[in-house]
Amino acid sequence: MSQYALGLDFGTESARAVLVGVTTGTTMATAVAPYPDSVIDQRLPGTNALLPPDWALQNPADWLSTLEKTIKQVMAESHTTPREVVGIGIDFTACTVLPTKSDGTALASLPGLREHPHAWAKLWKHHAAQPQADRVNAQARDRGEKWLPRYGGKISSEWLIPKALQLLEEAPEMYAQADRIVEGADWVAWQLTGTLARNACGAGYKGTWHKGDGYPSAEFLAALHPGLANLYTAKMAGPVVAPGRRVGGLTSAWAERLGLTAGTPVAAPIIDAHAAAIGGGVVGPDVLFMIMGTSTCHMLMAEREVQVEGISGVVEDGIVPGLFGYEAGQAGVGDIFAWFVESATPPDMHAEAAHRNVLLHTVLSEKAAALRPGQSGLLALDWWNGCRTPLVDADLGGVVLGYSLTTSPEAVYRALIESTAFGTRLIVELFTSAGVPVTSMRAGGGLTKNETLLSIYADVLGLPLEVSGSEQASALGAAILGAVAGGAHASVAEAARVMAPPPSRKIAPHPEHRAVYEALYHEYCRLADFFGRDANSTLKRLRALQR
Amino acid sequence: MSQYALGLDFGTESARAVLVGVTTGTTMATAVAPYPDSVIDQRLPGTNALLPPDWALQNPADWLSTLEKTIKQVMAESHTTPREVVGIGIDFTACTVLPTKSDGTALASLPGLREHPHAWAKLWKHHAAQPQADRVNAQARDRGEKWLPRYGGKISSEWLIPKALQLLEEAPEMYAQADRIVEGADWVAWQLTGTLARNACGAGYKGTWHKGDGYPSAEFLAALHPGLANLYTAKMAGPVVAPGRRVGGLTSAWAERLGLTAGTPVAAPIIDAHAAAIGGGVVGPDVLFMIMGTSTCHMLMAEREVQVEGISGVVEDGIVPGLFGYEAGQAGVGDIFAWFVESATPPDMHAEAAHRNVLLHTVLSEKAAALRPGQSGLLALDWWNGCRTPLVDADLGGVVLGYSLTTSPEAVYRALIESTAFGTRLIVELFTSAGVPVTSMRAGGGLTKNETLLSIYADVLGLPLEVSGSEQASALGAAILGAVAGGAHASVAEAARVMAPPPSRKIAPHPEHRAVYEALYHEYCRLADFFGRDANSTLKRLRALQR
Repeated sequence: MSQYALGLDFGTESARAVLVGVTTGTTMATAVAPYPDSVIDQRLPGTNALLPPDWALQNPADWLSTLEKTIKQVMAESHTTPREVVGIGIDFTACTVLPTKSDGTALASLPGLREHPHAWAKLWKHHAAQPQADRVNAQARDRGEKWLPRYGGKISSEWLIPKALQLLEEAPEMYAQADRIVEGADWVAWQLTGTLARNACGAGYKGTWHKGDGYPSAEFLAALHPGLANLYTAKMAGPVVAPGRRVGGLTSAWAERLGLTAGTPVAAPIIDAHAAAIGGGVVGPDVLFMIMGTSTCHMLMAEREVQVEGISGVVEDGIVPGLFGYEAGQAGVGDIFAWFVESATPPDMHAEAAHRNVLLHTVLSEKAAALRPGQSGLLALDWWNGCRTPLVDADLGGVVLGYSLTTSPEAVYRALIESTAFGTRLIVELFTSAGVPVTSMRAGGGLTKNETLLSIYADVLGLPLEVSGSEQASALGAAILGAVAGGAHASVAEAARVMAPPPSRKIAPHPEHRAVYEALYHEYCRLADFFGRDANSTLKRLRALQR
Repeated sequence: MSQYALGLDFGTESARAVLVGVTTGTTMATAVAPYPDSVIDQRLPGTNALLPPDWALQNPADWLSTLEKTIKQVMAESHTTPREVVGIGIDFTACTVLPTKSDGTALASLPGLREHPHAWAKLWKHHAAQPQADRVNAQARDRGEKWLPRYGGKISSEWLIPKALQLLEEAPEMYAQADRIVEGADWVAWQLTGTLARNACGAGYKGTWHKGDGYPSAEFLAALHPGLANLYTAKMAGPVVAPGRRVGGLTSAWAERLGLTAGTPVAAPIIDAHAAAIGGGVVGPDVLFMIMGTSTCHMLMAEREVQVEGISGVVEDGIVPGLFGYEAGQAGVGDIFAWFVESATPPDMHAEAAHRNVLLHTVLSEKAAALRPGQSGLLALDWWNGCRTPLVDADLGGVVLGYSLTTSPEAVYRALIESTAFGTRLIVELFTSAGVPVTSMRAGGGLTKNETLLSIYADVLGLPLEVSGSEQASALGAAILGAVAGGAHASVAEAARVMAPPPSRKIAPHPEHRAVYEALYHEYCRLADFFGRDANSTLKRLRALQR
């Protein structure tokens, strides 16, 4: 009998299911279903009340309806029998949290509550808890909370404590009714199995959990707001489980609804970006995995925990059980190139792209590839969207130096790509100097289609760069976790070796570009210090003047 | 009997004549004629031999044919009788020099020589003498030549000594045949009057002449090249005469050819930019006059000579007899905006301009005007074409700081305008701190059509800014000098008071913008120091990598 694992990938706009052979890694079928209510950032479904700015919600019912639809579709398309499904894995955006009753009922599904925005799931990109985040960070700094450095000295408004504090402060009655506050990922697993557990990835990277130290103390929470003291003890109750460990078996009700076998193991979930590392075959130390899209998320594993400046988090069991998962980030990457194409590229380039029926990015990349490193005389700092790692400072801005009257659009485009590569190298050097080695890189995400960019990254980093072999690495990563939970493989690493495809290609650095990029990177670091580390930096004063 | 003065304005592409009433300032007629051979930068007329790169020549015969044509035209159109013309003034590009025989015959007109590029007039923008300029500057620095600081510590390849040295080194036989080397301005006056004099403006700003100290020494010249020792004593012979003083009277031959009266006084010429100050009515201290076009030339007068960092020159009698004329410069101004429009503005802006049938500059300026100072979070350094005053460094590049993902084209455009205003303020503060006061500004040139720019300049400088009332200020300035030489007025200042129109408009600074621009200017200065004064500046290293 063939054995398959189901991978469920819950994204921002849609859910996806894949069915993957556990001994072949072959994807038998894929199905995608958009969430009926999509991202809720204008008005609550069925009401006319406008949401405040920076709000972003989801409807938990959408997760269930789309998982049902997509699972049924892949089962039908692949002609798989229920008994051939050995396990189910889940990846999810995070921190995407919802308030529930103690039996798992989402408050958003209760009559009389669903008209209240705070009853709904707050999506990862809900940014309305910034005032709360500022207070959390200030208080944690003042008290010298030892968990803070694990998160680069600053947590995001997207994370659990700010979102919970916003709920408490703006809707205390809703907070009181919320017996539990739970990541969407864990809520789906809870629904499917009847068992509430907290996945170590979400708990660690977004919920400030630590395997040794646990959660921030009740004293810390009470100092933020007396009502928050019970956040972890009551509302976040439940064991923390490493991704791929079995949370429970599919309930009879859900087995019937989905056409699967009751008791089918469901794995502890994982965040979508981290699932992509597993699906991309990166399940051990030394290889930096990057999801390169509008921004870049860097993941790296090691056997010990050290402090690294400005990272997004370090979590034991956060990606692969038994290893410390490090996450770092660049706040703007593809976003910067998109800005350039939209706002700073002249008509002749647009016309050429239209004439050739290709993306403008393609035209610019081709022309940029014809320039040799250093030829343009340009250098940029990639801070259009601030700097996550290492400076953790949103109040910075992008910089371009060296313009002349003959500076071409493609020269600027290349400088922008190079700047993001320098930003990546800075992160890699932070890791290596902290004792977390990086010997190669592997990348996934939309930007890996850009060969010019890949080549520049390999050259700037002086490291080989592999491109992830999977087109849907997150969903595959989830399936791998499902296979492990189902006992088809003894470990995530073993499962990935069998189920994850090899890299689609490998780009080697050009030795002849090394010296120039060393020199340019030196200048990048000098400018990053000058503009980024000085409290009186011009960039910070410009932002202050702007307000 | 009415009295008129002729102003002859020799530009880069064409000559212009104006006839102006000496008591009314009314321009009776204007005529423009393009030079038949135009700018000679590809091949010599009548030959197929390509000129080397960076060469730019003119045909001296073109100056004479166009002056004849335009004078006859204005005389005919205005129905003026020859006796009503009291004097003739001349302004000219500089340093535009030609080799001649001792009787004034241009070598370019001699059979057997005219096939040789070095026989022709080297136009101001002939840049092929850069190696010679580098050696002149290095040797002057090494020897501590006291004239060097009067020129900001560096003279340009456009000036007399480098051009003469190039002639000597590349065509020694031509140098030997050149009994005289003479500015085009002075050559035209010589032709018209039979008298060779050197106008103090050209001699001072381009020929390193000083009223007290004379020219650089024969020892200095001999150290550059033994053959150059006699440059000033022999080839540059002739008295130096302040602009507006009488050089001589029109010869009978030229009077007949032009239909004017023999003996009509011809004034010592002036450089075109400096003539524009006079035509713009700026003939005394305290008012900074700016010609704002692709670059900006700043002129300021004072009653004493002091050292000011990085100025283009300080010359006694250089603009108005009896005063010290200071000249400073910004190497790129309108050029930067043109680059932005050409290379960095997206199609929707172009489409809007086309739809409204206006210049893209108009669209950008309108949108930029709607932004308040500091709103964009941007700051720029205006060094796209290097920095003339105060840094005298071509190896710098433009900088833009503070980009975000929402930065708009008009925000960048405004930041570029502001950067050039900050550059002007830096120059003004250099003057005032050196003891040369500036209490207001007056501007001419193409950029004065841009109201947004004018308003930003007034705000950034915190000074009222007037716009020159004359559309052809250089030619009017020349006519004013002609009137003075003809005795119609006792001084240039008196003539200008009568003949120059009042400013067309006056822009007052907005007090409410003062504080933000103070802060932004402070940052501009900080960055200018960081990037401009450090020998290890990133901008200089980027240029070094580029080569």
